[in-house]
Amino acid sequence: MTQKGLGVCYYPEHWPREMWASDVQRMADIGLTWVRIGEFAWSRIEPKPGQFEWAWLDQAVETLADAGLKIVLGTPTATPPRWMLSKHPDMLAVDAQGRPRKFGSRRHYCFSHEAYKKECARIVRLLAERYGDHPAICAWQTDNEYGCHDTTISYSDAARQGFQKWLAARYDNIAALNDAWGNVFWSMEYAAFDEVDLPNLTVTEANPAHQMAFRRFSSDQVVAFNKLQVDEIRAKSTAPVIHNYMGRITDFDHYQVAADLDIASWDSYPLGFLEDRIEADDEFKNQYLKQGHPDYQAFHHDLYRAVGRGRWWIMEQQPGPVNWAPYNPAPLPGMVRLWALEAFAHGAENVLYFRWRQAPFAQEQMHTGLYLPDDSPNVAANEAKQVAQDLSQLQADQIEPARVALIFDYESQWASEIQPQGQGFDYFDLVFHYYKALRRLGCNIDILPPNATNFGDYTVIFAPGVVTLTQAQQKALRESGAKVVLGPRTNAKTSEFSIPPALPPNFDGLPLKITNVESLRPSAGVALEKGQIRYWFEHIEGEVTPILNTEDGRPAIVEKDNLIYCAGWLDETALFNFVGALLGAVDIPIEHLPDGLRRRETSDHVVYLNYAPIAISHRDAEIPPAGVHFVRK
Amino acid sequence: MTQKGLGVCYYPEHWPREMWASDVQRMADIGLTWVRIGEFAWSRIEPKPGQFEWAWLDQAVETLADAGLKIVLGTPTATPPRWMLSKHPDMLAVDAQGRPRKFGSRRHYCFSHEAYKKECARIVRLLAERYGDHPAICAWQTDNEYGCHDTTISYSDAARQGFQKWLAARYDNIAALNDAWGNVFWSMEYAAFDEVDLPNLTVTEANPAHQMAFRRFSSDQVVAFNKLQVDEIRAKSTAPVIHNYMGRITDFDHYQVAADLDIASWDSYPLGFLEDRIEADDEFKNQYLKQGHPDYQAFHHDLYRAVGRGRWWIMEQQPGPVNWAPYNPAPLPGMVRLWALEAFAHGAENVLYFRWRQAPFAQEQMHTGLYLPDDSPNVAANEAKQVAQDLSQLQADQIEPARVALIFDYESQWASEIQPQGQGFDYFDLVFHYYKALRRLGCNIDILPPNATNFGDYTVIFAPGVVTLTQAQQKALRESGAKVVLGPRTNAKTSEFSIPPALPPNFDGLPLKITNVESLRPSAGVALEKGQIRYWFEHIEGEVTPILNTEDGRPAIVEKDNLIYCAGWLDETALFNFVGALLGAVDIPIEHLPDGLRRRETSDHVVYLNYAPIAISHRDAEIPPAGVHFVRK
Amino acid sequence: MTQKGLGVCYYPEHWPREMWASDVQRMADIGLTWVRIGEFAWSRIEPKPGQFEWAWLDQAVETLADAGLKIVLGTPTATPPRWMLSKHPDMLAVDAQGRPRKFGSRRHYCFSHEAYKKECARIVRLLAERYGDHPAICAWQTDNEYGCHDTTISYSDAARQGFQKWLAARYDNIAALNDAWGNVFWSMEYAAFDEVDLPNLTVTEANPAHQMAFRRFSSDQVVAFNKLQVDEIRAKSTAPVIHNYMGRITDFDHYQVAADLDIASWDSYPLGFLEDRIEADDEFKNQYLKQGHPDYQAFHHDLYRAVGRGRWWIMEQQPGPVNWAPYNPAPLPGMVRLWALEAFAHGAENVLYFRWRQAPFAQEQMHTGLYLPDDSPNVAANEAKQVAQDLSQLQADQIEPARVALIFDYESQWASEIQPQGQGFDYFDLVFHYYKALRRLGCNIDILPPNATNFGDYTVIFAPGVVTLTQAQQKALRESGAKVVLGPRTNAKTSEFSIPPALPPNFDGLPLKITNVESLRPSAGVALEKGQIRYWFEHIEGEVTPILNTEDGRPAIVEKDNLIYCAGWLDETALFNFVGALLGAVDIPIEHLPDGLRRRETSDHVVYLNYAPIAISHRDAEIPPAGVHFVRK
Ligand SMILES: [Zn+2]
Ligand SMILES: [Zn+2]
Ligand SMILES: [Zn+2]
Repeated sequence: MTQKGLGVCYYPEHWPREMWASDVQRMADIGLTWVRIGEFAWSRIEPKPGQFEWAWLDQAVETLADAGLKIVLGTPTATPPRWMLSKHPDMLAVDAQGRPRKFGSRRHYCFSHEAYKKECARIVRLLAERYGDHPAICAWQTDNEYGCHDTTISYSDAARQGFQKWLAARYDNIAALNDAWGNVFWSMEYAAFDEVDLPNLTVTEANPAHQMAFRRFSSDQVVAFNKLQVDEIRAKSTAPVIHNYMGRITDFDHYQVAADLDIASWDSYPLGFLEDRIEADDEFKNQYLKQGHPDYQAFHHDLYRAVGRGRWWIMEQQPGPVNWAPYNPAPLPGMVRLWALEAFAHGAENVLYFRWRQAPFAQEQMHTGLYLPDDSPNVAANEAKQVAQDLSQLQADQIEPARVALIFDYESQWASEIQPQGQGFDYFDLVFHYYKALRRLGCNIDILPPNATNFGDYTVIFAPGVVTLTQAQQKALRESGAKVVLGPRTNAKTSEFSIPPALPPNFDGLPLKITNVESLRPSAGVALEKGQIRYWFEHIEGEVTPILNTEDGRPAIVEKDNLIYCAGWLDETALFNFVGALLGAVDIPIEHLPDGLRRRETSDHVVYLNYAPIAISHRDAEIPPAGVHFVRK
Repeated sequence: MTQKGLGVCYYPEHWPREMWASDVQRMADIGLTWVRIGEFAWSRIEPKPGQFEWAWLDQAVETLADAGLKIVLGTPTATPPRWMLSKHPDMLAVDAQGRPRKFGSRRHYCFSHEAYKKECARIVRLLAERYGDHPAICAWQTDNEYGCHDTTISYSDAARQGFQKWLAARYDNIAALNDAWGNVFWSMEYAAFDEVDLPNLTVTEANPAHQMAFRRFSSDQVVAFNKLQVDEIRAKSTAPVIHNYMGRITDFDHYQVAADLDIASWDSYPLGFLEDRIEADDEFKNQYLKQGHPDYQAFHHDLYRAVGRGRWWIMEQQPGPVNWAPYNPAPLPGMVRLWALEAFAHGAENVLYFRWRQAPFAQEQMHTGLYLPDDSPNVAANEAKQVAQDLSQLQADQIEPARVALIFDYESQWASEIQPQGQGFDYFDLVFHYYKALRRLGCNIDILPPNATNFGDYTVIFAPGVVTLTQAQQKALRESGAKVVLGPRTNAKTSEFSIPPALPPNFDGLPLKITNVESLRPSAGVALEKGQIRYWFEHIEGEVTPILNTEDGRPAIVEKDNLIYCAGWLDETALFNFVGALLGAVDIPIEHLPDGLRRRETSDHVVYLNYAPIAISHRDAEIPPAGVHFVRK
Repeated sequence: MTQKGLGVCYYPEHWPREMWASDVQRMADIGLTWVRIGEFAWSRIEPKPGQFEWAWLDQAVETLADAGLKIVLGTPTATPPRWMLSKHPDMLAVDAQGRPRKFGSRRHYCFSHEAYKKECARIVRLLAERYGDHPAICAWQTDNEYGCHDTTISYSDAARQGFQKWLAARYDNIAALNDAWGNVFWSMEYAAFDEVDLPNLTVTEANPAHQMAFRRFSSDQVVAFNKLQVDEIRAKSTAPVIHNYMGRITDFDHYQVAADLDIASWDSYPLGFLEDRIEADDEFKNQYLKQGHPDYQAFHHDLYRAVGRGRWWIMEQQPGPVNWAPYNPAPLPGMVRLWALEAFAHGAENVLYFRWRQAPFAQEQMHTGLYLPDDSPNVAANEAKQVAQDLSQLQADQIEPARVALIFDYESQWASEIQPQGQGFDYFDLVFHYYKALRRLGCNIDILPPNATNFGDYTVIFAPGVVTLTQAQQKALRESGAKVVLGPRTNAKTSEFSIPPALPPNFDGLPLKITNVESLRPSAGVALEKGQIRYWFEHIEGEVTPILNTEDGRPAIVEKDNLIYCAGWLDETALFNFVGALLGAVDIPIEHLPDGLRRRETSDHVVYLNYAPIAISHRDAEIPPAGVHFVRK
């Protein structure tokens, strides 16, 4: 069994060497066991092209190793030095408006630039050669937060050429592409692959099939970029390779990138995310201002457990106010501990805080760390120490298998961005909407990739909005033995982004077709007995049994055998009722939780997490704000 | 008398030939008599430059002709094939930010590109030569929806060179231009026409006279582009030539384009327009979610009757949910019928649904048709059939002359965009505001072009906001025998976009001058006894009689003989009262209509249309939602 | 003592010469004594490169001089003629998106373009040579409204090259720059100055130190541009040199530009500013729609008194509706007078209306003047005449020294834009927030530059948010004998935009450190007994005495000796209470003023100004709306 551990991200190159020993000593004192280093240090490792400075890094590694700390060594490819741009002036990504995205921050490269990829392979090879068998190098991190700052997609010349090659490989001949995309429409037919441009700056929207191809290509470029590094590392090292994904980055397929990794990790900034990537009203955001959204971290934990095929970490954990969200409050005392414990309850192997000491300079100077710039401890240092102590009680806890599965599919997200059909329709939101309803019922949930076909012991599987399901996937779902909840928008498109000839959902065993689709203004719902259908409502026909009708008598949810189809976006009330009844019907135990309280079951404990800003009484326990309450099973 | 007919837009190139015969048979069965084809098929007609494939089109024409269907043949110039771009890489329009608007959708051409215009003339000539005397080709459509997707205005090199030529032709010498525009201001004087750039990306706003000249030039380019095609068609065919205008496209002068056409037509998407080009609050939009704005279609019907000098069609009629609005609901059952009947009540010759069968691929895959992609009928097929039956009862109905006229002027729209003076001031909205007030009173309304001088039997003529009126137009209005309602902003500018030396309205016979103009925040009106003046209030002086004063005693509406001047933007209440009293005073019968009910009189019927989502009782009739109630006169 | 005077901006080149004599006669009749001319007339002075037309300007000067009017002669460099662009095609500024900002309006030049600067020196030299000793040329104006239309900052090649030189001069060697900016972060290190690009279009935000350097450089370019002109003028003329600053332009350091001037002036458009550069809710904006913000003009008056080291004017005063704000209402009758009298009460030497006669053409045709385009007087002409009469009673009034000082620092504004940390945090708003609270208490206020070290007789000095204070400034404040109010954010950064190693406020004599900073959503405040802390809250530690705690017991305001630190953004209630108590404690007389009434004391009068739309009773006086009430002391 893997030991659960705590760690921190550390930038020795930012500090005088005289401070290193004391830093490392204090890390050990707090109870940290892992330290991530190196991922932004290219200009210090190779200050001029081909001229290397290894001594400082050697010393940093030794200092950490001497204190018994385990190292995650990052490849520095997210921050190529300025001289790289002089060598490869066209290496920059280009934004959708056609403007090169300049040097002066980070992630200033295009994933399709072949020469830059060679430079990356070279630096990773040198690192792997030098440190690949060092006993303290216990893991590797490739690059940093692929896709952060909107960097997956580039409209550069390199991207265009890469796309044309990708298309040629996929379609073989241009007639096949024209046919697959329906280019007869609006006379968009091409005579050769090199006539196909990137789908930006078109007069009106480009063909959605064209857009989807470009999204797939862009995702594949990230996969290839990552694999190049993994291959170099594996040639010299047996330590596991990890990438640190960023929250709610969905432009590339995380499952596919992770297919080449040993472990997935993600960077968890609950307060930053609440402000900058979650839509909610003022009342909600004020309620959770200093705690973060009570389901958002858990969702990502469960997602990255899937991405990492069971193995996952938090590579960066928010320690206090950050610098990058629209508003940057301080966590409620206790939350820095709670967030870590929640991660462990969801199966994290390690949680690393970002960062050791707040840097007083450059872009992240307002991002706190465990220590302040004056080298005194900040609040998080104490909470981290507490977590280290808690951990000793939790080493035996293992993942408790879930009976409920929820599919999350990156391609479906691209589909909803390419063709929302109703303003604001967002696949991620749809899936998260289901996730929240299930969490309110106290369930453990497993997230699954769309190509899952082995459904083990799941009793209910939710697959709302999965844009395309192959025959094999349909068969696996149908024969899973579980209740399978489809719709809205499930299997609404073929793999080439067209409507299936027999009409959606086009699902074997479900005699149903969607004839008309309505997207609705947020204030114009379709009334149900309890709650409403909002944003999206499908008109359906077929030999199925209604489970729920609209007030005016049209089918809203229908079933046939173990297949259930939901023809709209149920609002919170309606979804909660539907999901609750369904879980009840298949005897999944549910527990109604007070506002702000969340529940996660491990092999040994039921863990209650209080995200509310006030104390909560539940089942004879009084749980303070930011409190974590363990009930031994 | 022209026979009223129903039709559909059809894209044989999108479907296997095996389907054509069955399609055509069902068209005839429904009662359709017209079919539009061909307007996006350039890449199928001429797959490579100079290499033609006529056989499929010949066969499509014959198939339709054999079933007795009449064909509108579209010129395919809105969708030049990809090879055209290789031949003419600089043919693309350029947006206001200086970015070429790329291939990959449609309308990717600049109206000023001379070589592309030659290509258009060539393809139109070939079409006209081949099909010009075919008996089934009963009408032609030029291009498709000029100006759609913001395509009237281009900032390309071709446009700049064209503009400089246009200026040289208009002003003859550069001193005249400098003088006309007042270029002494801010030292903007030019020494030669080729120094005059397009008015985009200037540091602050460009001279409004410069902007107006560019708007006129841009409109003239559309006129010339269209005329080129009309000339080619007329050389070979006697069938009438039509263009299908799009709703609320106002960047070019539709009257001037239509001067070269036989018939005007427009594309009517009531639900799409409600969402994407009408400003209204949530309550209103929810009320009319599935019916569309109750006056918007009628306004365009009356406008295009004017544009077509009496002859007009609906070339595309919404059949169900579309794909391009922010939200895309389904029509209330019956609305697909109501919209068509309303068009006929306003004098439409033909109404064509867009489109026959929903295409499962490409950009409009979520745009419904009469048939579904699986070839089963959608709701609209039945409603269309019903309309075809209704039509047999209505063939005798003719236009009933209106006693109320309302001027609509494209140049005034450009003026309000160039110089709103108050944020959101929009000429279209002002005219439509009058139109709605008149519709609430149950009137038939004629829309007139600004250069109308023969006012026949009109009893009241409204000319709010017409930016410039020549002496001849003023004389004609003054001597029309009608009450003439001017202001606000009527004749506020000379033809060179300066303030008339004697101050507006500078109207012969109306001894009045505007000394100060106030634009007002939406929430800061000027109180009247009933209602308010909003957005715009003019301070006036002159020897005129007040009809209405503000609460604090300043003149709001004044008159002199048959001329009435309204010094502000009256809110709904104030305008309704003013217009109602005025119509009453001249004995125009008015009928107060319940919310959502509308009325249109033909030679034989009074037609009531229920746009409300509920049944309405009116004058002993109970009219269901989406109901059309005919009262024989 | 300088005589107070009234004047007007006049553009003889816009009008036939026949009108000049009558214009000038009426100016004198109204009581105007100053006329500004020439600042946009380059194309008339030098219609072709090197070819001059002086006769008209000579005549205009003589006409004005003959009537005894004093002239401010403007340099025409804000409007280079079109031929200048042909000579120097790269002279245009470039916006942050990389687009040249084209000819066709004004201010189309980059401050860093050396060849254009030479052209400016040349034209100014010629003007100074010709008119430098003319007795009627009593003042000069350089250029016009530096920075207006966002023109301080340019991303042109010229700017980039200039910036690299500026950096080389500041840092001497690139290692010093790397170290100062902390470029080790994200491998942003440079090997040479010519590798440093401008900080736009980076993938994510550029290093704030990089941004601050660019802002300082951009400001310095304005200083140099202005100095070049001043030097040319001074070589030939002894008349004072002025620049007319525009309201709330903060992109360059006005103090530094003014160091080379004799007099500061600003352009006061109270109604335009209320609409376009003040954030307030609807209720407030409607209340002051026709009067302007009651503190905004006063703030700028006090600011420009500081900028001009005691000497300042209004160079342009709004006379009626303007053309450039989102909404452009007319002033309440009397406001045109009130605004001028308020300026004089704050020490203005002269107030000039903009403009004499409304031009019927070009960009500002909807901007009113004292006269209408038809040459009849507008409302403002009469109010100006009234002011001229009032002035005769006020010539003896002098500035009454203030006991309260408020520091305003341009660099701090740049800092808050570069690193708001909380969305919407704006330094200007913070300072203006203090200014408003003090005005509600009836105080005279002096604004001081950040480098002030002589604090004379001030009893209280406010320095909220001043980003950096040198040791010398700290010492001067500490030893000023005044209460000194610091925070939030005071001295939060070193001069190289990093956090001081000992943590802010890092103020000698104040044993305090800020450990964590919270930026807060507008609706999520920190409760105080009365009012709230909003937007910004600092966690503090130190040996200081709390003056005010939050409801949950954390320090909000603390003091040590004469130093007070405020750890957050107090809301209106809390700030008013704090400031009121503080002023009371040091025996500064305060006077609670009714809503909308303002008070300013001169040597001889207490002046009450009624900005409310209704009459106000105060201390036995009934002051009508727009009324100015003088109480002789
Ligand atoms: Zn990170
Ligand atoms: Zn269309
Ligand atoms: Zn100005």
